[in-house]
Amino acid sequence: MILAPGATVGILGSGQLGRMLAIAALKIGLRSHIYAPEAEAPAHDAAMAKTVAAYDDEAALTAFADSVDVVTYEFESVPTTTVEFLSQLKPVRPGARALALTQDRLVEKQFLRGLGLETAPFADITDSGALARAVAELGRPSILKTRRFGYDGKGQSMIREGSDVAAIHRTLGGGPMILEGFVAFEREVSVIATRSLEGDVVAFDLCENEHERHILARTRLPARVAAHVEAQAKDIARKILDALDYVGTIGVEMFVARSDDGAERLIVNEIAPRVHNSGHWTIDGAQTSQFEQHIRAIAGWPLGTVTRRGEIEMHNLIGEDADEWRDILAQPDLSLHLYGKLETRPGRKMGHVTRVITGAAKGR
Amino acid sequence: MILAPGATVGILGSGQLGRMLAIAALKIGLRSHIYAPEAEAPAHDAAMAKTVAAYDDEAALTAFADSVDVVTYEFESVPTTTVEFLSQLKPVRPGARALALTQDRLVEKQFLRGLGLETAPFADITDSGALARAVAELGRPSILKTRRFGYDGKGQSMIREGSDVAAIHRTLGGGPMILEGFVAFEREVSVIATRSLEGDVVAFDLCENEHERHILARTRLPARVAAHVEAQAKDIARKILDALDYVGTIGVEMFVARSDDGAERLIVNEIAPRVHNSGHWTIDGAQTSQFEQHIRAIAGWPLGTVTRRGEIEMHNLIGEDADEWRDILAQPDLSLHLYGKLETRPGRKMGHVTRVITGAAKGR
Repeated sequence: MILAPGATVGILGSGQLGRMLAIAALKIGLRSHIYAPEAEAPAHDAAMAKTVAAYDDEAALTAFADSVDVVTYEFESVPTTTVEFLSQLKPVRPGARALALTQDRLVEKQFLRGLGLETAPFADITDSGALARAVAELGRPSILKTRRFGYDGKGQSMIREGSDVAAIHRTLGGGPMILEGFVAFEREVSVIATRSLEGDVVAFDLCENEHERHILARTRLPARVAAHVEAQAKDIARKILDALDYVGTIGVEMFVARSDDGAERLIVNEIAPRVHNSGHWTIDGAQTSQFEQHIRAIAGWPLGTVTRRGEIEMHNLIGEDADEWRDILAQPDLSLHLYGKLETRPGRKMGHVTRVITGAAKGR
Repeated sequence: MILAPGATVGILGSGQLGRMLAIAALKIGLRSHIYAPEAEAPAHDAAMAKTVAAYDDEAALTAFADSVDVVTYEFESVPTTTVEFLSQLKPVRPGARALALTQDRLVEKQFLRGLGLETAPFADITDSGALARAVAELGRPSILKTRRFGYDGKGQSMIREGSDVAAIHRTLGGGPMILEGFVAFEREVSVIATRSLEGDVVAFDLCENEHERHILARTRLPARVAAHVEAQAKDIARKILDALDYVGTIGVEMFVARSDDGAERLIVNEIAPRVHNSGHWTIDGAQTSQFEQHIRAIAGWPLGTVTRRGEIEMHNLIGEDADEWRDILAQPDLSLHLYGKLETRPGRKMGHVTRVITGAAKGR
């Protein structure tokens, strides 16, 4: 199904990613319809229509499907049952498989290993006995994570020397978990790439990321890795996209570690089946943004070129950082993005700021 | 009145300019509310709220003013009475003066002359006797225009050798008119500039424009004029903005003519008290777009820098040109913008396409 201009994109989820997807849809003559349980949310302001309903409200989902031409999602915690239900009515891109896979940290790691990609060592934790054995095997420090519903550091806890493993297990709820061995990495990087309906893959340049308190703080490009490592990272993203028969933009987070011989090597950490925070710089810094690429892909349209406009620095405005909006506006090199969130809360992503340093500007 | 993030911008008019203003407002965390008589229109898709009502519906205007923090307009044919009414309730930027001035071609020309700027020779046509005398004085060809409600070549007619002057006068309605002497120009250029609430003025680089059938077809930068002429053009725009105590983005159209001594000189043709078609390239090709500049200005926020990213070519997609959307998407250097108009009509602006040629791309 290929959309015509004027068609409507249905978006599950109403956060800033949905907002920026809706803005990208507007640029190229498409409409958007947001479906989410929240009545007030960043994406609603940018969409032609909104449905405020629960993700299991089949009547609301049916009406939503009737009013749109294609469905996508802007966050990975949408229930797979919602996506499966909608898939019977309209194309959902990317589909239920990528969603299900990334909702379960164990399944995701197994999938990555199945593709021959390196991940952190991990163990399937079915109960406290399995946990004790896995801690003995993977050593300390290691990280215990719930299999489901984790993001921005939620649902995980470090097991250190002297940690009470059983207590940590109980605090996380005691359900099915994954234990991940500690990875000594030099840098965190990510590949943002898009796969079209016809199977073309276009990757943005490699992003180098810094997290603070498990939340992305800063992204810079070019990433400080060897050129062949950047090429290898893009190949990994392509392999994942092809294996999932994916349509849309994906974010693949990786660690750059050093092997004993000093060579850089890539360890895949996590897949986000959606546009990704480390790709926000593309609005200002690339020929086509990750958001427009995603909309083009799910519309069945050709992908754009993603030439980078210069050296990039993107930083997130978390919580009270956004109070600096006026100073940011007054700085000549910065591009300010605010998500329209009316309430500032600690840890909340309120906006981001991009600096693009072009050759001309560097020469000054 | 300075807006806070999350505030709402009221926009009179619902065309593509309103749409692109609303998109720019979204980027920097503001909401927009469109007021227009049309139920289906490009700007509605991008706005959080719309009021569909006549421009003289005082109850609807009052409710609109109550729901917004500042008012602006996206086209110059909004009745001045509407703007005057709203001005009593909320700040309107730019205000009624710029609107009234540009709605009357005679008043506009007199204003420009009053600033010491060169315009085409013109005469006030109150009746057919005045017209006959003016044609004798200004010669043929000359252009007879209604004083009000002209755009894209509407409301005007050329008086040539052998033309039946009285018939042309009747065809245009016989009301108050202006006769403009013919200007032999080499190029058409425009300055897009923005003035902040505090009086700062920032101008984009000079645009060189080509019209076809009185509609803008193409804009290119840099304009092929001497550097001092470009500087002079920006000074002219500043002079106009300051004289009007203007807040927001303006478009000033000028002709570049040759004096007898071969020097280039600027003749001011027309002012548009709004964002302008020849500034659409700024979305892709400048650090800050004309739309974001306008929103920043009317919000009382600092203006951005307008560094140009390379050589620019923008062309409008008029009528069936937009049928080429898929081919345009597939071309690597082009950025496509579609306005969401569901019906294609001859002469209708459906979208535009921008090419930004950077130093890197040129070197390939």
